[in-house]
Amino acid sequence: MKLARFTLTDDSVIRSGIVKDKVIQEFTGDLFATLTLTGKTFPLENVRFLAPLMPRHIIGIGKNFVGESVEKPTVPEMPILFFKPLNTVIGPGDKVLLPHGTEEIKFESELAVIIGKTAKNIEPGQVNEIIFGYTVANDFGVSHYFHPEGHWTIGKAFDTFCPLGPVIETEFDYRSARIQATVNDLVKQDSLIERIITPIDVMISYISKFMTLMQGDVILTGTPAGADMVRDGDIVDCYIEGIGHLRNIVSASN
Amino acid sequence: MKLARFTLTDDSVIRSGIVKDKVIQEFTGDLFATLTLTGKTFPLENVRFLAPLMPRHIIGIGKNFVGESVEKPTVPEMPILFFKPLNTVIGPGDKVLLPHGTEEIKFESELAVIIGKTAKNIEPGQVNEIIFGYTVANDFGVSHYFHPEGHWTIGKAFDTFCPLGPVIETEFDYRSARIQATVNDLVKQDSLIERIITPIDVMISYISKFMTLMQGDVILTGTPAGADMVRDGDIVDCYIEGIGHLRNIVSASN
Repeated sequence: MKLARFTLTDDSVIRSGIVKDKVIQEFTGDLFATLTLTGKTFPLENVRFLAPLMPRHIIGIGKNFVGESVEKPTVPEMPILFFKPLNTVIGPGDKVLLPHGTEEIKFESELAVIIGKTAKNIEPGQVNEIIFGYTVANDFGVSHYFHPEGHWTIGKAFDTFCPLGPVIETEFDYRSARIQATVNDLVKQDSLIERIITPIDVMISYISKFMTLMQGDVILTGTPAGADMVRDGDIVDCYIEGIGHLRNIVSASN
Repeated sequence: MKLARFTLTDDSVIRSGIVKDKVIQEFTGDLFATLTLTGKTFPLENVRFLAPLMPRHIIGIGKNFVGESVEKPTVPEMPILFFKPLNTVIGPGDKVLLPHGTEEIKFESELAVIIGKTAKNIEPGQVNEIIFGYTVANDFGVSHYFHPEGHWTIGKAFDTFCPLGPVIETEFDYRSARIQATVNDLVKQDSLIERIITPIDVMISYISKFMTLMQGDVILTGTPAGADMVRDGDIVDCYIEGIGHLRNIVSASN
């Protein structure tokens, strides 16, 4: 099932819906609980997609992919993790704003996992039980705001630095999926998600050992080789087969 | 005005109130908007204080104090900042839990600033307009979960690692205030807040340049010299004159 938040092109009411073929079926109710169809259906060409949820936390992992020709390193004992604040969240089509005085930033297409249930101290084999669904994320960063002592906090936290969408796919098998990204239609990233170093179930189990995960927490699972710098006017498209396509434009206007 | 969240010792309903002398006057309504007194008043000895709010974000700053005998360094161009997730929040009297397999953790008494209004790109001179109030925080961390490449994320993020309380003081002048902490009644920290390196107004202005601050965001302003390791059974008391006293017990039971 593909779940979305959206507005219609001719009004600004925020609605929720299930995407099926070329239409969206509106529903009301809590995304994580019971959905009640309103009976209204809209053609997708009249719909503007928003970020499919407002997360509770966004937790990112660094340096988590290897290329297809490279032997995988062992899973590190401690992953590099960071938080992105909620002001980073934007939807498909929204502008990613360059920080004042910054000419280029780095995009990173990523699979985002959405947690559906409270989880503390779970093992990798239990992780599937607490995953609600998956979406596409673009984890933007600006390295000259990474602190010389190693903290990525600021460089990952600028407003608009976490496009999410277009939908949450609740029935998705990442083990065979491919993730891709283009900049101005030029392919920059193209990898099997299987080329991940710390596997998704191990990563989520690890996080649940230090923090209680809850409904609405979003985990960005890392980006494959090829993440690159982008500038004012560049169009970045991230694709995950089975979920969808997330397009954003980088903009200096602030 | 001193604002609190509390339960009564004989029921579990979460209530809000204004602390005045030895009583608490219950109110209903949005903490940040209009408070409506219910007319009910409870003696403080029948009250159990909770964390005075559930923050939207918690933003911490590292290495931000110098001792009274030391000359202040210049304000760094880029502060060390980190986020603490919401699972860290507990209230006065709650247990701070040692991570599994960890025997000691570090406490840090801090002044916490609570943001009341949306703020983007504000200057230090405008910061007072967006501050709602102040509370006491204890920013716990465990350095062997700091990543070797510098990220503090995990070590600052364990459940129970951010006691807050007992109240939000809305009329507080930090410039002349003193912050203290004891462990098992032994004084460990005792400093003027004025010994801060990046001043509070500069720090909040800096944060507002990369992220839109919003109502409920909490900024931990750093800890003075003397923060120390604590173990199972240790009682940590943090004091800020004019706000109050935050006591927590470290516990291995998990």
